[in-house]
Amino acid sequence: MEYPSKLIENAVNQIAKLPGIGKKTALRLALHLLREDEETSQSLAEAIVDLRTKTQYCRICHNISDAEICAICANERRDHSIICVVEDATDLIAIENTSQYRGLYHVLGGVISPIEGIGPGELNIQSLIERTKAEDSEVKEIILALSSTMEGDTTSFFITKKLKGRDVKVTSIARGVPIGSELEYTDEITLGRSILGRKAYEQS
Amino acid sequence: MEYPSKLIENAVNQIAKLPGIGKKTALRLALHLLREDEETSQSLAEAIVDLRTKTQYCRICHNISDAEICAICANERRDHSIICVVEDATDLIAIENTSQYRGLYHVLGGVISPIEGIGPGELNIQSLIERTKAEDSEVKEIILALSSTMEGDTTSFFITKKLKGRDVKVTSIARGVPIGSELEYTDEITLGRSILGRKAYEQS
Repeated sequence: MEYPSKLIENAVNQIAKLPGIGKKTALRLALHLLREDEETSQSLAEAIVDLRTKTQYCRICHNISDAEICAICANERRDHSIICVVEDATDLIAIENTSQYRGLYHVLGGVISPIEGIGPGELNIQSLIERTKAEDSEVKEIILALSSTMEGDTTSFFITKKLKGRDVKVTSIARGVPIGSELEYTDEITLGRSILGRKAYEQS
Repeated sequence: MEYPSKLIENAVNQIAKLPGIGKKTALRLALHLLREDEETSQSLAEAIVDLRTKTQYCRICHNISDAEICAICANERRDHSIICVVEDATDLIAIENTSQYRGLYHVLGGVISPIEGIGPGELNIQSLIERTKAEDSEVKEIILALSSTMEGDTTSFFITKKLKGRDVKVTSIARGVPIGSELEYTDEITLGRSILGRKAYEQS
């Protein structure tokens, strides 16, 4: 595509580097910014730079944070005896938005993937083990909330092995047929697992 | 949605102001930028600010430009006797990408729309008339390439009236059934117009 100005070409190329945004969408966004106030572009640019340069990671759980210790770890009203292990901040936000969990988190920063060259050393696994070892540790349960993929399962298995012998219960989030979805459209593996992992109704 | 950090919340809010980008996509983009090098965010931010603060508009055709006169108007090898009138730079880029047009352009900056409070005075119509009046004017034809909507048609009608009496041919781009589309799926108005505007085959 040819552009009428080098400035617009540069902006389009930079915007199109974002995942899921092609050149056409990038051009639409660039022309939108040109129509808006200068302030719109300035605050957008500032927010992007601030995000990358000022964001910290929590010293305890490695979550994105404004301070050395994130708001969740610092919150005394949360249950400090449970740690939910997630792959990244997106998963953490997704679980937070369910309002069903009041414990702490531990962000691994990825999952073990030999193909992509990510070993246990690249992830925040050692610091998780140390959280359970600390003298003032209240941790009683670790919930593994990793993706149900080969890499996720490998990572869960690795962490479970590392925690062996410790007085900590290791659990996994429930796998099964999603709420609201029809049985006939559920894949065989999920359906198979949901039968094996069936739960008894409380009959009282 | 709750965010683990004010910085990410601010970035998400700013990114989600862009058209067609919701909070979820904005969060995905923000987390992507957090994973990338600092340079990625810096160049993106710079490109956005430069675009808005340094972009000029061509003194002749009002197209986006790097200089006072845009590359198209300054190009002596283009046909200076035809001006194609478009609504905005996106349409200009779309026509340029067809490689079917070698004349000049005139960017109106919108179309007449009483509902949105846009009258002829808000658009670059007067400067178009003056381009045909200039002593060294070579303009022989003006092609109106505006959207086939109520507003586009009103604008085309207004410009045609303004150009009355001048020694300039005013034409409109062809309306009809798009190439490659099936007749049965074409709307009635387009199909009706395409019959009225039928063209003779050259039989020789």
